[in-house]
Amino acid sequence: MRYKITIEYDGAPFAGWQMQASLPSVQGTLTDAIEAFSGERVTVQGAGRTDAGVHALGQVAHFDLARDHDPGTVRDAVNAHLRPHPVAIVAAERAAPDFDARFSARARHYLYRIVDRRPDLVLERGRAWRVPRTLDVAAMHAAGQRLLGRHDFTAFRAAECQANSPLRTLDRLDVVRVGHVVEIRTSARSFLHNQVRSMAGSLANVGEGRWTPDDLADVLASRDRSRCGTVAPPDGLYFVAVTY
Amino acid sequence: MRYKITIEYDGAPFAGWQMQASLPSVQGTLTDAIEAFSGERVTVQGAGRTDAGVHALGQVAHFDLARDHDPGTVRDAVNAHLRPHPVAIVAAERAAPDFDARFSARARHYLYRIVDRRPDLVLERGRAWRVPRTLDVAAMHAAGQRLLGRHDFTAFRAAECQANSPLRTLDRLDVVRVGHVVEIRTSARSFLHNQVRSMAGSLANVGEGRWTPDDLADVLASRDRSRCGTVAPPDGLYFVAVTY
Repeated sequence: MRYKITIEYDGAPFAGWQMQASLPSVQGTLTDAIEAFSGERVTVQGAGRTDAGVHALGQVAHFDLARDHDPGTVRDAVNAHLRPHPVAIVAAERAAPDFDARFSARARHYLYRIVDRRPDLVLERGRAWRVPRTLDVAAMHAAGQRLLGRHDFTAFRAAECQANSPLRTLDRLDVVRVGHVVEIRTSARSFLHNQVRSMAGSLANVGEGRWTPDDLADVLASRDRSRCGTVAPPDGLYFVAVTY
Repeated sequence: MRYKITIEYDGAPFAGWQMQASLPSVQGTLTDAIEAFSGERVTVQGAGRTDAGVHALGQVAHFDLARDHDPGTVRDAVNAHLRPHPVAIVAAERAAPDFDARFSARARHYLYRIVDRRPDLVLERGRAWRVPRTLDVAAMHAAGQRLLGRHDFTAFRAAECQANSPLRTLDRLDVVRVGHVVEIRTSARSFLHNQVRSMAGSLANVGEGRWTPDDLADVLASRDRSRCGTVAPPDGLYFVAVTY
């Protein structure tokens, strides 16, 4: 039986989603908890391989178990074994045998949170990126619209990115202020490695008035990685949801 | 020169606002940081003595320094000495000599955050109270209106409360769902010890359908502490702001 799970995690204590030999990972933590519940050593396939420190509100994964369990039991029992790690299954359901959390995904949704203030973060520590100057959110949003559509995103791609092509189609990039937080909400079928954090860092340049929206469009068109702004830290990045 | 500061803190590592001999406190941490900056040992008078684990987004305090400093310098320099404690001055200004953070306050504003779901909290861990059943927010709000006005709040008062009178005037109690969080927003000139957490626990009883709004009104009228619901944990409580 194939199960689809939706997972929340705090990325801080993990070397990232992907299982690694000697480092804590979300995938490894989940695999161990599923084994403790079921006695089966499964492969947990995630929709996205988040980097070290990146959070998730709605990562999605699938795995197969020989026995058929009630999905609510899977959720509660695996959650009990996940304690005290900051990972929880927020929803579990049976899935079709051909459902694949990674390859069936039609859209991935990310949120990047910035708090623009001088004092250090306290309640948002590890949960947002602090930028010490007040950001012009309208300029950021306008600049973000220049990234929409199908482009070669080489300028916003990590050197170690393993994707075959730098072409991606950005479907949404909204920048809005919610209380004291500047939220960047972005969606695409898939993203390049570090693409959201690279875009967030460059959008902050626009918000600080150091770049115009035209400058951002020029950087995109340059396909030159060295022209990208600072890659924003993982603290502010949340994998929010996947559409199938 | 008197200074008024607005302070954010994570209550988790502290035994509360008030300075204590051998336990970490917010007041003590601030006092030490102000001394490290100014060389002066001052009394930091807060608007409210939050309990162990209770957070603040906008606690207010005042203190006097012999020397006149630019308030922005006070904020930044004290913040530098507050690291790595999860306390930060978010605003500082000069205040009139008769300004008193505690006694000049006309209204105090608190927020109580509840996440109603079965899975353990992850990104909200220590930042909200988890209630495992879906809450009826409309019923909670309706019940909350029964607490407005001037009442004897003995039923919602900690045994150790030191106030002279159990009479308080509740000016606001709104319950609203914001995303996945049920927010209780409440304001009064002052609150009794544990009053907000006692009201939050009792409102959760209404939200779970175990009490009607009439039941809550009966508990208030009873002035009987033993009829109060569970006192909600400090994790969900935030001292948001003070009006002068």
